[in-house]
Amino acid sequence: MVNALINKAYYLRARPQGSPAQADLQLVEEPVPSLQAGQALVRTCYLSVDPTTRVWMSDYPGYLPPAPLGAVMRALGVGQVVASQRPDLQAGALVFGWTGWQEFCVADDTALISPFVPLPEPLPAPLSAFVGVLGHTGITAFLGIDLARVLAGQTLVISGAAGAVGSIAGQLAKVRGARVVGIASGRAKCHHVVKDLGFDACVDRSAADWRERLAEALPDGVDVDFENVGGEVMDEVLMHLNLGARVVLCGMISGYDSLGTDAATGQKAIPQLLMRRASLHGFIVLDHGDRFQEAIEHLANLLDSGQLRYDETIVDGLEKAPDALNLIFTGANTGKVLVKVSEPQEL
Amino acid sequence: MVNALINKAYYLRARPQGSPAQADLQLVEEPVPSLQAGQALVRTCYLSVDPTTRVWMSDYPGYLPPAPLGAVMRALGVGQVVASQRPDLQAGALVFGWTGWQEFCVADDTALISPFVPLPEPLPAPLSAFVGVLGHTGITAFLGIDLARVLAGQTLVISGAAGAVGSIAGQLAKVRGARVVGIASGRAKCHHVVKDLGFDACVDRSAADWRERLAEALPDGVDVDFENVGGEVMDEVLMHLNLGARVVLCGMISGYDSLGTDAATGQKAIPQLLMRRASLHGFIVLDHGDRFQEAIEHLANLLDSGQLRYDETIVDGLEKAPDALNLIFTGANTGKVLVKVSEPQEL
Repeated sequence: MVNALINKAYYLRARPQGSPAQADLQLVEEPVPSLQAGQALVRTCYLSVDPTTRVWMSDYPGYLPPAPLGAVMRALGVGQVVASQRPDLQAGALVFGWTGWQEFCVADDTALISPFVPLPEPLPAPLSAFVGVLGHTGITAFLGIDLARVLAGQTLVISGAAGAVGSIAGQLAKVRGARVVGIASGRAKCHHVVKDLGFDACVDRSAADWRERLAEALPDGVDVDFENVGGEVMDEVLMHLNLGARVVLCGMISGYDSLGTDAATGQKAIPQLLMRRASLHGFIVLDHGDRFQEAIEHLANLLDSGQLRYDETIVDGLEKAPDALNLIFTGANTGKVLVKVSEPQEL
Repeated sequence: MVNALINKAYYLRARPQGSPAQADLQLVEEPVPSLQAGQALVRTCYLSVDPTTRVWMSDYPGYLPPAPLGAVMRALGVGQVVASQRPDLQAGALVFGWTGWQEFCVADDTALISPFVPLPEPLPAPLSAFVGVLGHTGITAFLGIDLARVLAGQTLVISGAAGAVGSIAGQLAKVRGARVVGIASGRAKCHHVVKDLGFDACVDRSAADWRERLAEALPDGVDVDFENVGGEVMDEVLMHLNLGARVVLCGMISGYDSLGTDAATGQKAIPQLLMRRASLHGFIVLDHGDRFQEAIEHLANLLDSGQLRYDETIVDGLEKAPDALNLIFTGANTGKVLVKVSEPQEL
């Protein structure tokens, strides 16, 4: 029965140069293997598409080993157990884990980093939220704002303000009483960030005078830079740091297409970290498993009370996964980018 | 009597482009002004020449305002009070303060940042040491190593290892039990750093294979980067950071000739601070006046017990001050660069 299923999977064939090209990822159809003891079969529902996905495709020394060539492309996702020889994962259960860019995933204990985990029953939020605001994305925002130690009345700048992490982080900083200035590309996104998400201001990075607009939005300088973008945007923010400011380094997406290559451009304003006696703190969500529960509860409470909202850009169909990734890198998304692969079903 | 004295002074005339040129600094002879109440006249003995001197010449937003054009070039120094209408500075006393690049300085309470202070009597070390190992240079090294929080057995890398701050900082880290790897330019300097200063290794930045040599010297990675140089050297060190490593940002001399200009090159390895969950901490010695006494006592004790040594590169004559600055930027110095302007005299 299970053996009759056909899996569709994107294999990583080559390390992209710049934006991923067709030859880098191959969509393959193959039989789903027979389950062994200790394995479960998971049908992917939503795949998480993140800036870090592009880093995994490269051989740049990252926080995880590069995604292996000749294997299914690495991804986190949520799915449904459709068959199981694992006592901890019942058929029908909704789960979170390393599904990869594929329709069916064999979940066993040899999984990279962390095993599949069942989601709470009944689901307290839509399934897609568990790879977004109530998943690693929201937890990243929570941990970053915690690390920011921003105080009420201080100014926090967030690049990628309309993105998956930035949009949540800014709202969390508002809850703490900070003045929050976003940076995003395009008037519509900036409008959304201020009107719907409640940021105090949002500077349109695509405007010719964005540097002047940023300066105007920062009359009291920058106490915390929650950095998602890097490159010119980060350099400009660093020029406004207050004495003793903190940079929370969450991502540097503007450079992920060229990491470790000759095309990589450098950060020119690092001397400002010296001049302003500032500190910079890199962090990775995967290090902080002991705080996931705290983070999820905090985020869920804010959702329930209407103090937090989230956006999704859902791309339909596994075959569009490369396009979904490209959305992030062209800034065409608002909020979390997901690939919808299937709907959970009554088994 | 005092009015008969002639002062020689370097005036800053233009902001250098690249290395300071002759037209940027003008050596002027002018009468020493009459002393007013609350003023003392100080004859400079030694001028401190530091990487930061070059930053002050620029209009880059630094930790101090730019050195004003049309004024005597800013500098710290030690000198002797030759006449006084200040009760706190007796004629004959040796003092530390903002002398500027000149032979005679009027010391009053309008001095930039901090007033002149008398040195201890009798001097516990040669006078030149008070703008070096027992002055802001040594204190910088002390504070940086304190901020580094390096533990016994950890690996600390120091760029500019034969320089004024690096040479002291490395020895302080050795006292704490760290494994200390220096980076310096030239075989002679590297030999000195290992054989005389006791570093565990020193990589010659001028060797073609310096990147490989650095990797070999770091079998256990980098726990702390004590950064004095920036640029390619810093980028290479960052590629070896251990998880949770710390970067103590003390200086970035390799870029000081081009700060804020189109010629500035950026730091390409900043994403490693994210990948390695590292932190970076900028600091400036002037913030920490409350710890100067502690630092000086610690350094003096180590000097007395033979656990600390220091090097000086002394350039003779005020007129050679620009050449002295150039020594630092070509890496031709070992240890602290000083300009000797005069000897203290029996008054």
